[in-house]
Amino acid sequence: MPDKNPLARLEAYSDGIFAIASTLLVLEIKVPAVAPDAPLGELWRRLADLWPSYLAFVLSFGSILVMWVNHHNSLRILQRTSKPFLYANGLLLLTITFIPFPTAVLARYIDTRFAGVATASYAGYAVFTNFAYWIWAATMRGPVYLVRPDVPRAELTALERRTWAGVPAYLVTGIVAWWLPSVGLGLLVALWGFWIMLSVGSTVET
Amino acid sequence: MPDKNPLARLEAYSDGIFAIASTLLVLEIKVPAVAPDAPLGELWRRLADLWPSYLAFVLSFGSILVMWVNHHNSLRILQRTSKPFLYANGLLLLTITFIPFPTAVLARYIDTRFAGVATASYAGYAVFTNFAYWIWAATMRGPVYLVRPDVPRAELTALERRTWAGVPAYLVTGIVAWWLPSVGLGLLVALWGFWIMLSVGSTVET
Amino acid sequence: MPDKNPLARLEAYSDGIFAIASTLLVLEIKVPAVAPDAPLGELWRRLADLWPSYLAFVLSFGSILVMWVNHHNSLRILQRTSKPFLYANGLLLLTITFIPFPTAVLARYIDTRFAGVATASYAGYAVFTNFAYWIWAATMRGPVYLVRPDVPRAELTALERRTWAGVPAYLVTGIVAWWLPSVGLGLLVALWGFWIMLSVGSTVET
Amino acid sequence: MPDKNPLARLEAYSDGIFAIASTLLVLEIKVPAVAPDAPLGELWRRLADLWPSYLAFVLSFGSILVMWVNHHNSLRILQRTSKPFLYANGLLLLTITFIPFPTAVLARYIDTRFAGVATASYAGYAVFTNFAYWIWAATMRGPVYLVRPDVPRAELTALERRTWAGVPAYLVTGIVAWWLPSVGLGLLVALWGFWIMLSVGSTVET
Repeated sequence: MPDKNPLARLEAYSDGIFAIASTLLVLEIKVPAVAPDAPLGELWRRLADLWPSYLAFVLSFGSILVMWVNHHNSLRILQRTSKPFLYANGLLLLTITFIPFPTAVLARYIDTRFAGVATASYAGYAVFTNFAYWIWAATMRGPVYLVRPDVPRAELTALERRTWAGVPAYLVTGIVAWWLPSVGLGLLVALWGFWIMLSVGSTVET
Repeated sequence: MPDKNPLARLEAYSDGIFAIASTLLVLEIKVPAVAPDAPLGELWRRLADLWPSYLAFVLSFGSILVMWVNHHNSLRILQRTSKPFLYANGLLLLTITFIPFPTAVLARYIDTRFAGVATASYAGYAVFTNFAYWIWAATMRGPVYLVRPDVPRAELTALERRTWAGVPAYLVTGIVAWWLPSVGLGLLVALWGFWIMLSVGSTVET
Repeated sequence: MPDKNPLARLEAYSDGIFAIASTLLVLEIKVPAVAPDAPLGELWRRLADLWPSYLAFVLSFGSILVMWVNHHNSLRILQRTSKPFLYANGLLLLTITFIPFPTAVLARYIDTRFAGVATASYAGYAVFTNFAYWIWAATMRGPVYLVRPDVPRAELTALERRTWAGVPAYLVTGIVAWWLPSVGLGLLVALWGFWIMLSVGSTVET
Repeated sequence: MPDKNPLARLEAYSDGIFAIASTLLVLEIKVPAVAPDAPLGELWRRLADLWPSYLAFVLSFGSILVMWVNHHNSLRILQRTSKPFLYANGLLLLTITFIPFPTAVLARYIDTRFAGVATASYAGYAVFTNFAYWIWAATMRGPVYLVRPDVPRAELTALERRTWAGVPAYLVTGIVAWWLPSVGLGLLVALWGFWIMLSVGSTVET
């Protein structure tokens, strides 16, 4: 049963999940309560005090965005789907859907004594996400080969290597973060910049 | 009034609902509160204590994913829609939209004395979902026959039988779960694996 | 600047809003709290006590579904858009987006002394929704005529009359509901059934 | 690797975010609590007392709608994407996703002593949004020129000037709002009307 575009609904469902997971992040940021007789500047101060929430929001939104750009570019080299690929895509989406939770934990505890645990758990969760991403890329190669015939094998290998790199990178980040939370946080931001650069590559064209 | 693709908006609306219902599940998982002077390991422990929420999240996300894959594959054998089918699809989406609620009940009570009630109500709700799914499949056959002429009747019959099997399976699971919650939970997971295998079938191609 | 399908993104944006407004309704239903030493049946009782929430959920989901079916069918007679139509569509979507709020008010107060106020405000809000729907249909006719040339004028007139009927119908329902809440609620359900029948019309085909 | 429509998924992801950000706004409006023995009119009064929430909801929904109409119309002059444009679009979506938060702050404090701070922070946030919008428009021109060859350069220049105007306009509004909150609020509404008129322009056709 041939189809005009066998990837269209997969894209629609995935785009929906990417979009919603990004958007739900804002629900974790609560309006600060100020005493009615507090000085006016108090509301500014309370809004500024929410910086961990803003930081976590930007970090997670940015991570989901990079993953969306990669997902978007990767699907373009495919010509078909398989059932293992549909389920691997589902697993990837599951891990993305869950991101608001470690983000909320990070935002809640980043400026407390528990910063190490919070940052390590965030990085630990990223290990899991990257593992799902790697499985997803692997099901492009087998059991059914999904890639368009005009795409060189080297491109697929490069994609798989890129997804593989994430697992050890976030594992190390998690261990560092446990002892030195702010270094771990810096590594998270640096890795994010690294993925962006990697996805932009040597060309700015898509 | 002919249309290029009469199913396109039905798919878009359905994909939106499937995607959002999956994603809202995470909002039910709340960041644990830890006393400021608690030992550092306390946050890990509290995060681990949330296992019923994680389990319920994965179970429901997985169920919605399987239903999405089936919905996706079923729509591909159709060539048109009818108003009864639009409303039957609406009823199916209603039942899917509601899934975050029984999921939250399951997560809240699975490790309490009320585990039996929570698991039974989750399975009971699945009876309802599967019933809606069966009605949905039935409206493909009548009052207007929606299936493409090149699709063998046997394929539609197989689809209907599959949707029909869900109702008694979850009914039994619900009754068992009422007395033996962990057996019921095991059955829920087993049924989920069974639907995945059934949807993959003898071929990994879509 | 011609476009392949000038309505495609309007549909995507509208479908997104319809889908999300339907799905957010479930977030208003909270998991009941049960005392740890309560009899097991207590959780069943508490789940059953949430009937106003279930009823409001089904009523609002159903209303949004009927509006989606009508929106879907109405767009099919158009061949283009205009800026007034884009903004009228925006106003319609605004009213649909807001539906979770009167729904939550209805669910919260339907079984209290305030049932009359809650039902009347729900019906009153439906007046507003139907008014937006009527404006939306009016901008199909002017200032730019958007309907395909092969569609008879009578069909557009019938559509406008149908949207116009909603305003007085919900106005009367609101006034009745203020004095007799359960009659008002019955009228809401009856009107919903009426719109479904009207949209199905004399044919089950789309 | 050519693509049939290189903008299709960008539109789908963007439409998803616009739609969800609009819809989440309603979650910030909470059902008022009324004492069980209060006079019946009390519920009406409490519903009326929520006017700041309704106002903020309409203001933000309207702003997102205008941005969506502009986004929609701007994408129509493009023939391709570039990676900088994908990330600039991501930044724009990030700012839109965040809108429910300043909206909730505005709704919470508009009728308190803190009205100036709340309105100023809302306008200040709009400065940021408009800045992202301007970057977005700039990446249409470079480093890769994305506009269709048949679109006159003047049209792109007009688009950029329009996006540029937003930054100083909201900056002034923010400063005024700090001292005179209701004037600031009036300016916010006036600016919104102004963008609508600007987007409708001299023609009602799209």
